[in-house]
Amino acid sequence: MADLSPFSVLVTGSNRGLGLEFVRQLLELPKPPQLLFATCRNPSAAQALHELSAQHSSVRILQLDVENSASIQEAFVSVKDQLEGLGLNLLINNAGRVIPNSFHSESAESMLQLYQTHVVGSLKMSQTFLPLLKKAAQMGPQDSLSCNRAAIINISSTGGSFTELLGWEIGPGLSYRCSKAALNMLTRCQGLILKEEGILCAAIHPGWVQTDMGNCRGFLAPMKKEESVQGMLKVFSTLSEKNAGYFFDWEGKELCW
Amino acid sequence: MADLSPFSVLVTGSNRGLGLEFVRQLLELPKPPQLLFATCRNPSAAQALHELSAQHSSVRILQLDVENSASIQEAFVSVKDQLEGLGLNLLINNAGRVIPNSFHSESAESMLQLYQTHVVGSLKMSQTFLPLLKKAAQMGPQDSLSCNRAAIINISSTGGSFTELLGWEIGPGLSYRCSKAALNMLTRCQGLILKEEGILCAAIHPGWVQTDMGNCRGFLAPMKKEESVQGMLKVFSTLSEKNAGYFFDWEGKELCW
Ligand SMILES: NC(=O)c1ccc[n+]([C@@H]2O[C@H](COP(=O)([O-])OP(=O)(O)OC[C@H]3O[C@@H](n4cnc5c(N)ncnc54)[C@H](OP(=O)(O)O)[C@@H]3O)[C@@H](O)[C@H]2O)c1
Ligand SMILES: NC(=O)c1ccc[n+]([C@@H]2O[C@H](COP(=O)([O-])OP(=O)(O)OC[C@H]3O[C@@H](n4cnc5c(N)ncnc54)[C@H](OP(=O)(O)O)[C@@H]3O)[C@@H](O)[C@H]2O)c1
Repeated sequence: MADLSPFSVLVTGSNRGLGLEFVRQLLELPKPPQLLFATCRNPSAAQALHELSAQHSSVRILQLDVENSASIQEAFVSVKDQLEGLGLNLLINNAGRVIPNSFHSESAESMLQLYQTHVVGSLKMSQTFLPLLKKAAQMGPQDSLSCNRAAIINISSTGGSFTELLGWEIGPGLSYRCSKAALNMLTRCQGLILKEEGILCAAIHPGWVQTDMGNCRGFLAPMKKEESVQGMLKVFSTLSEKNAGYFFDWEGKELCW
Repeated sequence: MADLSPFSVLVTGSNRGLGLEFVRQLLELPKPPQLLFATCRNPSAAQALHELSAQHSSVRILQLDVENSASIQEAFVSVKDQLEGLGLNLLINNAGRVIPNSFHSESAESMLQLYQTHVVGSLKMSQTFLPLLKKAAQMGPQDSLSCNRAAIINISSTGGSFTELLGWEIGPGLSYRCSKAALNMLTRCQGLILKEEGILCAAIHPGWVQTDMGNCRGFLAPMKKEESVQGMLKVFSTLSEKNAGYFFDWEGKELCW
């Protein structure tokens, strides 16, 4: 297992929850990223990110709404500029939402909304940042895929798994499950397509974690953010070509679709 | 294996392709449906359906665009009326589309479009027609699930399967794959939810078939419509509670997700 030491990283939805914890723990790596693009929908309200950027000049806060192509494009221009000719090593598509609905009350609007955020948003992020990921892949070691060289990690969920449906009755609704299953398919295809370009793509389930999302509907999630993200970063450090297009949990266990 | 003999059936996208062939072959069953709701977006152009309905009074042509809630609702009112207090036994969510795009050219619009048709459309159909499916389930034999009693069949595709990705490079694009994976998740969840109400829900892959869709992009599909639909109807006749929420091909083989 190599140390996780990407030169540059971009995280979506990094103002709270797992996204914010990714930023915190990336800064604590033995070799932290030199450029850490902490993106969120509303930077002016991102208090915790501003505190981190005051202490770490590597933290660059950028406006980015994954549902808005213009916003993605503007963030891309700024990231490209700040990279000064270098590539982007690691893109973490973390932004996510849940809209609680039963089967009977599930609406077309919620279905399309979550598909837009999780699937179309992650696709648009990958497509837009592809030139920078390719550049990183070309400049990195040519013999293997890794999160240090060039990678896209989609934060998915066992809610999108066909085989891990235990507890589905109490879990999130159809809009969430269908969109995360589709995100897994996006990951599967991207994994196959992009490995030819030296870019690793994989999906990861963070566990059931104490965030606004994890604790919604009156539940207290069993795991702390710190533990989940620590696990996921360790998994990132182990991913290689054989994992391209696959689905893991925060402990590194390969999940069935 | 019981004979397939539902009293009433509704097929979406029945003006051409597999949908039309379903109507044709349902009429040739030893005990054909007494009411066969052949729905399509544009009845005035549905020549073949009009010929069939001229010969068979059981064929009722109805306008139904699965992307339009008002159109689904209007069709529901008409079907309910024509059923005169009886239930709907079999709903075949067949309507489908493909939009060819490579990974790099895949657009947000195509992604959302196919999700709307395949996933939101099938969900809205099931939700809207649920009262009639429930009525059929209550009036049918109480001891087992079947396509004669009450069932929803979603016409899916191995394009939505994570494990049958062989040939993915030449196959349909991300918008199709992601939407069919999500349709499979809808089927999986509906299968679990609706079996409690006596309604069977399953997904089926028709094979690669000579229709406008199957022959697109310059390919000639290997199978004829007749063979595919004959196979699928035979599979329908064998489905029972143990198959609820699962995914089969036209030969009855259970497919991995
Ligand atoms: N927590 C769990 O138990 C759990 C389990 C499985 C998977 N996950 C996945 O983990 C990821 C992170 O979830 P979390 O638990 O940290 O949830 P969270 O605390 O609710 O945070 C969600 C984050 O996503 C952002 N976001 C939502 N829509 C966005 C958009 N259109 N553009 C940019 N950012 C957007 C939110 O920004 P705003 O502040 O602007 O709303 C917020 O920063 C999600 O993909 C989620 O599905 C979580
Ligand atoms: N053929 C294959 O090899 C193959 C393989 C795997 C899965 N499938 C699946 O099988 C199903 C039938 O496909 P096919 O091969 O018969 O395709 P097809 O010949 O292209 O016919 C598609 C049918 O769906 C209808 N449709 C499309 N959008 C609709 C909407 N919004 N509302 C109502 N109807 C709509 C079309 O109506 P219009 O005439 O109005 O456009 C047409 O009747 C699809 O779900 C497809 O994904 C086919």
